[in-house]
Amino acid sequence: MIDHPFLAELCARTDSKIVLLVVDGLGGLPHADTGLSELERAQTPNLDELARRSACGLTVPVGPGITPGSGPGHLALFGYDPLKYVIGRGVLEALGIGVELGPGDVAVRCNFCTVDGDGRLTDRRAGRIPSAEAAPLVERLARIELDGAEVEVKHVQDYRFVVVFREYWGYGGQGLGQNVSDTDPQRVGVRPPEPMGADPPSRTTAALASEFIHSAQDILGGRATANMILMRGFSSVPTWPRFGDSYALDPCAVAAYPMYRGLASLVGMRVIPTGLDFDAELDTLEERIAEHDFAFLHYKHADTAGEDGDYDGKVRALEELDRRIPRVLALGADTLAIAGDHSTPSALAAHSWHPVPALVNSRWTGGVGSTAFSERQFQTGSLGTQPATSLMMQLMAHAGKLDKFGA
Amino acid sequence: MIDHPFLAELCARTDSKIVLLVVDGLGGLPHADTGLSELERAQTPNLDELARRSACGLTVPVGPGITPGSGPGHLALFGYDPLKYVIGRGVLEALGIGVELGPGDVAVRCNFCTVDGDGRLTDRRAGRIPSAEAAPLVERLARIELDGAEVEVKHVQDYRFVVVFREYWGYGGQGLGQNVSDTDPQRVGVRPPEPMGADPPSRTTAALASEFIHSAQDILGGRATANMILMRGFSSVPTWPRFGDSYALDPCAVAAYPMYRGLASLVGMRVIPTGLDFDAELDTLEERIAEHDFAFLHYKHADTAGEDGDYDGKVRALEELDRRIPRVLALGADTLAIAGDHSTPSALAAHSWHPVPALVNSRWTGGVGSTAFSERQFQTGSLGTQPATSLMMQLMAHAGKLDKFGA
Repeated sequence: MIDHPFLAELCARTDSKIVLLVVDGLGGLPHADTGLSELERAQTPNLDELARRSACGLTVPVGPGITPGSGPGHLALFGYDPLKYVIGRGVLEALGIGVELGPGDVAVRCNFCTVDGDGRLTDRRAGRIPSAEAAPLVERLARIELDGAEVEVKHVQDYRFVVVFREYWGYGGQGLGQNVSDTDPQRVGVRPPEPMGADPPSRTTAALASEFIHSAQDILGGRATANMILMRGFSSVPTWPRFGDSYALDPCAVAAYPMYRGLASLVGMRVIPTGLDFDAELDTLEERIAEHDFAFLHYKHADTAGEDGDYDGKVRALEELDRRIPRVLALGADTLAIAGDHSTPSALAAHSWHPVPALVNSRWTGGVGSTAFSERQFQTGSLGTQPATSLMMQLMAHAGKLDKFGA
Repeated sequence: MIDHPFLAELCARTDSKIVLLVVDGLGGLPHADTGLSELERAQTPNLDELARRSACGLTVPVGPGITPGSGPGHLALFGYDPLKYVIGRGVLEALGIGVELGPGDVAVRCNFCTVDGDGRLTDRRAGRIPSAEAAPLVERLARIELDGAEVEVKHVQDYRFVVVFREYWGYGGQGLGQNVSDTDPQRVGVRPPEPMGADPPSRTTAALASEFIHSAQDILGGRATANMILMRGFSSVPTWPRFGDSYALDPCAVAAYPMYRGLASLVGMRVIPTGLDFDAELDTLEERIAEHDFAFLHYKHADTAGEDGDYDGKVRALEELDRRIPRVLALGADTLAIAGDHSTPSALAAHSWHPVPALVNSRWTGGVGSTAFSERQFQTGSLGTQPATSLMMQLMAHAGKLDKFGA
């Protein structure tokens, strides 16, 4: 709803505070033996008590049947239509490993590959060499210097790494474009094509990328495998409406994992450095919430266990979260939302398309609650089932930050 | 959702199979005496058992308050927005009586009328002459030959018939247009106007139509009534995105009634010839399902009884369907949907605007079910109430045929 035609007119600055707690992969599915979902199985007295005095419902992250990645799932909760605000693959990969991206930077997903004596691809993934072998190679590539631009090289996992091009002189100041073709031909037996730019700024990027590839070839050339690199998904940081400007908020983000800090920074939230787990996040937010009227707080472990297909682990992750709900409540938000970027049922061991539980608590939600915090109870909750992009407008309303529309 | 901006990117071919069983006119309304809808009254142990282990909900075919015809109702289930994909009246009438239409054909709804000695209309429907009187007249009109085009004439019912123009030579190969004005002036006392084409190909159609009308006049001229014809709803087969291409499926359609085969062929499904009832349809699909990864199967009689205002008849039609559910399950679909193109409450003796029960069964729907297959139970089902155009995306998701959106 960041594109709501009357948003600028309706949003009002007030002293009230909104906390949006995103429980990654929150929704689940019933266990085949018990018929109970992870949320139904977990002992969550604090979440259940909160649900009884909150407006509860389900959110659809992207659309019916669509399984969202983390990027689209979070953007939707922030009110950005994920079908319109699409994050480039290179940028997303860079955010995931904590690379800080600024305007004009171009991020690229890279991987090692193997070529024969004629430069023809024999293995597009270099035998999926493990991190132990790849990381030292990435370190060597990180020493490459380019003419006219800064370059950052960072290992991701196994045979994959990220390259970020940052112009800092030359090229007439027209910047770097992202419309550059992949160098992965998607098949073996051919030479990887040179990167090609579709417009003048992108041709600048392509020239830098080509220079980088040839330098990499010089460094890796003596090897039998992993002796070449491929580049895909050239993309730059999008210039989107800023979250704070759009909603007339002064937002902050507290997240232990780099991906979620990166997503928050993409929409212009102030990212507060924090520790490595949810307790550290709570410490940070307790200290800093006074400076902000909106906080995005991220809880990761429900998703991690779900992705692992670990039903019991997800149950435990939800119980761990439940024990910290008193601390979340003690932050003193006027409006608290607990939502998820997507479902991660342990039965699927993956993200899924299922609607995700969402709860809004404010002084206006007494008596409208659901009996327990679960997919099933929230199905018939007072919020109904709605697009995730609608949630922010309701938080703004509950916090008294939306003026009346029309007289 | 056929126009989903990321559909081509997300759809993945897999071995899994989807069966979409459309129960025509599925939804109903409570009986005034018992308070039970036809579905609630019917003994449907198989449907109820299936509902308990399926995701259940309601679909809105076109929009709030809109009562759909068969065309829009089916298009929505196939994922085509019925407000955007509009089928011409001539084409729909032709499909309903089993006329096979190809690209470039123009179909027209026609009816007999009565004119006086001056050619002025005295009765726009020729006293609604019955089929027994009209059919032989249609046979005589079917002998008309046109210069430069093939023409097919087929009786519909009572005073109504269909004419299809098929160009096969001449006219410089520019084809036939559908933008031709009706010849029904909508009032008596005037001469029916000549058909007029709005563009060169439509002027070709208009010339053929005019030639046909004058020939018809020669044939019918000696009669006191039904001595002239009127033409309305010139329309040609639309060139829409093909269902199979859009969803990366190899779809087939099995339907005993011509209208539904026609609708399936409009979206490019492979229509498999079958017998005259649902048992024959099941025989056909059992034989042929191995060749396809999507099957549209149509059950007619719930609608027929509903349209007749026959509550008990609709109850029986649903019970007849229920007895065949084991055969439907035995088809072995990985994802089975049971849905309706619209409601046909016997209390209304007509199609209605009410949301329609829909059920999705897959390996992911254990434990999320509703207690019985009915409008009331599905109201609070885990699928919620959603646009009918969303259903296909969920079937694709359940069948594992949709990739994750974003990382």
